[in-house]
Amino acid sequence: MSTINLDGLHSPMQPIGVIESCFPEKFGVPRQPGLTPSATGRIMLREPFDRPEMFRGVEDFSHLWVVFLFHQAVAEGWKPTVRPPRLGGKQRRGVFATRSPHRPNHLGLSVVRLEEMVFDSPLSYLRISGIDMVDGTPVVDIKPYIAATDQPANSVPAPGEGVAEIVFSSDVQRFCRRYEASTGRRLHALIGEVLAQDPRPAGQRSREKEFGMLLWDVNVRWRRQADGYIVTSCERVDPPT
Amino acid sequence: MSTINLDGLHSPMQPIGVIESCFPEKFGVPRQPGLTPSATGRIMLREPFDRPEMFRGVEDFSHLWVVFLFHQAVAEGWKPTVRPPRLGGKQRRGVFATRSPHRPNHLGLSVVRLEEMVFDSPLSYLRISGIDMVDGTPVVDIKPYIAATDQPANSVPAPGEGVAEIVFSSDVQRFCRRYEASTGRRLHALIGEVLAQDPRPAGQRSREKEFGMLLWDVNVRWRRQADGYIVTSCERVDPPT
Repeated sequence: MSTINLDGLHSPMQPIGVIESCFPEKFGVPRQPGLTPSATGRIMLREPFDRPEMFRGVEDFSHLWVVFLFHQAVAEGWKPTVRPPRLGGKQRRGVFATRSPHRPNHLGLSVVRLEEMVFDSPLSYLRISGIDMVDGTPVVDIKPYIAATDQPANSVPAPGEGVAEIVFSSDVQRFCRRYEASTGRRLHALIGEVLAQDPRPAGQRSREKEFGMLLWDVNVRWRRQADGYIVTSCERVDPPT
Repeated sequence: MSTINLDGLHSPMQPIGVIESCFPEKFGVPRQPGLTPSATGRIMLREPFDRPEMFRGVEDFSHLWVVFLFHQAVAEGWKPTVRPPRLGGKQRRGVFATRSPHRPNHLGLSVVRLEEMVFDSPLSYLRISGIDMVDGTPVVDIKPYIAATDQPANSVPAPGEGVAEIVFSSDVQRFCRRYEASTGRRLHALIGEVLAQDPRPAGQRSREKEFGMLLWDVNVRWRRQADGYIVTSCERVDPPT
């Protein structure tokens, strides 16, 4: 093995952009981004990474890898083991066996669908969907998704999760229709996709508790019932300052 | 969009390990790792990331993401556009439309197959295959490959490349048999997999030139002929110091 001075390689990451997301807070953020096509956002590019020539040819790809920093976890540091929500929060796993934010170097990785590129300096961005990043997430790299490279043959599939039945109260249905008409955001679909992945914290799954989560600027309240969920109310809130 | 102080997030990457690879140099490194199952290596873990509990559960996954630093490109900096070898080196593409090492933050991303985990401090490592990293590459993250998350539906496949016919001289065949018997390394298969991806530099494809490339400690000489390649000689060399 070649010896190299790794300590000289503590190279600082420079954000190339910031995620503008429908998820203002961690709660509700899907754990499987591909299953939430209505989760939309933008990568707002920063100088000097907002030049159109740096993205020439990106339009040939349907999907992109976004490498980002779990910025909310940086202050909390990393942990050798975590309790992944996918396993009900009951089993400890090594952090490298999970996608936990509490990992050394705090790097996150998600594949997203590319919807549109806009270069109109100083407002240049990539519109993307199927995201699982919280608003304000710093992006450190964007790469094309190449199936031949990125889909290993014979990979073991992750255990699937059952799809739950989701009931919307008539008030909520009305709210969603009005909201979508005025903003163009597919709130109804996104609520369904997020709930289908069971966003309840691991320790709180047995209770009949009502939860609230922010999607864009809407506080969505829901609770578990029978084999699914009921969405009880939607209310617009002031954006976080 | 929330405002966060991105400049405070120039967080340094700390290598968790170093790649020990069959590719001592950049030349010959495949551009599509999944197509070279015989390309084997190890992630040599560094303290304090060499603790078995940090990898508990990793054995449930057949494949892993390795996030690494293109350390050889760090000194060269990044470029807004590059000429990808996949396109014959003739067309310029934005760096974010490629997997080029000359990218902001110099992060690399490869999916590899997990073969074995060994924790025997101070020699702890993950044995992996299907790699495309050069020897000495610093690793900054390891994540499980989760098909449900990492394989988007309806992604556009990358253009396939034709498989070339590869001829081994009888001397080379004999060399490979002896080498494989004494080292356990599948040299013959690896040569085939590497050549099938056409490792010739973009500007040198039209010439009838002989090339040499290092695989492990073997200098492999070959040249293009007709619809394929002929491997003309193999010679053991002293490992690089």
